[in-house]
Amino acid sequence: MIFHYPAGIKNEKSSQKPPKSKISSLKSRKILSASNRGRDFEKAINETNEYYRNNALAVIYKRPTPINVVKVDYTKSATITKAYFEKQSTTDYNGVYQGAYLDFEAKSTHNKTSFPLSNIPHQQIEHLEAVIKQKGIAFFLIELKKKDEIYFLDAKFVISYYRKSKRKSIPFSELEKVGFLIKEGYEPRIDYLPIVKRLYFDINKNPS
Amino acid sequence: MIFHYPAGIKNEKSSQKPPKSKISSLKSRKILSASNRGRDFEKAINETNEYYRNNALAVIYKRPTPINVVKVDYTKSATITKAYFEKQSTTDYNGVYQGAYLDFEAKSTHNKTSFPLSNIPHQQIEHLEAVIKQKGIAFFLIELKKKDEIYFLDAKFVISYYRKSKRKSIPFSELEKVGFLIKEGYEPRIDYLPIVKRLYFDINKNPS
Repeated sequence: MIFHYPAGIKNEKSSQKPPKSKISSLKSRKILSASNRGRDFEKAINETNEYYRNNALAVIYKRPTPINVVKVDYTKSATITKAYFEKQSTTDYNGVYQGAYLDFEAKSTHNKTSFPLSNIPHQQIEHLEAVIKQKGIAFFLIELKKKDEIYFLDAKFVISYYRKSKRKSIPFSELEKVGFLIKEGYEPRIDYLPIVKRLYFDINKNPS
Repeated sequence: MIFHYPAGIKNEKSSQKPPKSKISSLKSRKILSASNRGRDFEKAINETNEYYRNNALAVIYKRPTPINVVKVDYTKSATITKAYFEKQSTTDYNGVYQGAYLDFEAKSTHNKTSFPLSNIPHQQIEHLEAVIKQKGIAFFLIELKKKDEIYFLDAKFVISYYRKSKRKSIPFSELEKVGFLIKEGYEPRIDYLPIVKRLYFDINKNPS
């Protein structure tokens, strides 16, 4: 059985960080199979953000998983001995791109025909609504594992589906119409910034 | 002895969340003495951000403290039994205000005459430089405990001091000249948004 550790969590055996050279040698990486890509999705986004940061294209980070620390042993160099994972009250990723605030959530589904909205906690919808009200750029990256595809979806579309539609999932046919397919590459792996630029910059701003 | 728990950390006895009514009844709160205000600084900023969110003025959160989880007991509803605090590689706070990306760090000093730059890790300086390069708004909130004062300081000033000055601290006289004093209020407690508006919006943008 493979454990799906929560965001940013490593198991004991692999708690050492991989050497820098391994991280950057993505070009030599083999193309991953669809099943591997599943649990690889978060890692791919983190690597993408790292690429963006290293190349001064954007400053976007994954928010750490909130943990409620109950007991700390200060005799053992502040070892946490009792704690619980807490729910993220926001989305997983945020940052800045050309002065604009970006905020997004990454979701994966094993479903074959539609993306279940039960994947999205109510708190996240409310958070994204607040971000949009503040003129932030809000979106989802959705991985369809069975189809081996990744879509960029404006959060407004997801919110309106969540708020107005009686259906509890977004059919893939709908998602393909409204979303933007992102082909996974080598570096960056999930290159979503060009879509952000096209959708929220090129249209709304006059070319200089 | 009073333990200064790291950000967001509670000790076991006080691990229950205070009732909502207590949080919102700030108006009835007595003005805190300078010594109380010290460890209260982070809480005051969190309450300010909560006020901004509740009143749809801005969406700003404290990033959770990153924790490296080593052992999890899944037989006891996913209790973390071994973990370590990690250093924040960014700043503590970020979010969106009127489309603009805000990123800031809060620091306190017990010093009487100057703010020591050793309070700021090199990583944070690099992070703030990257944010500024992306046209984000970057600043510090600095609490001078001995003077019972809070200053808003543009990050560019701190960075240039850090990079260029041979002195290892910013004298208060300098800080008072370049920074903006924030009087602590009731709701919001540390009202920094008007300064953000004045510094980064009113000057750079034409009045509509």
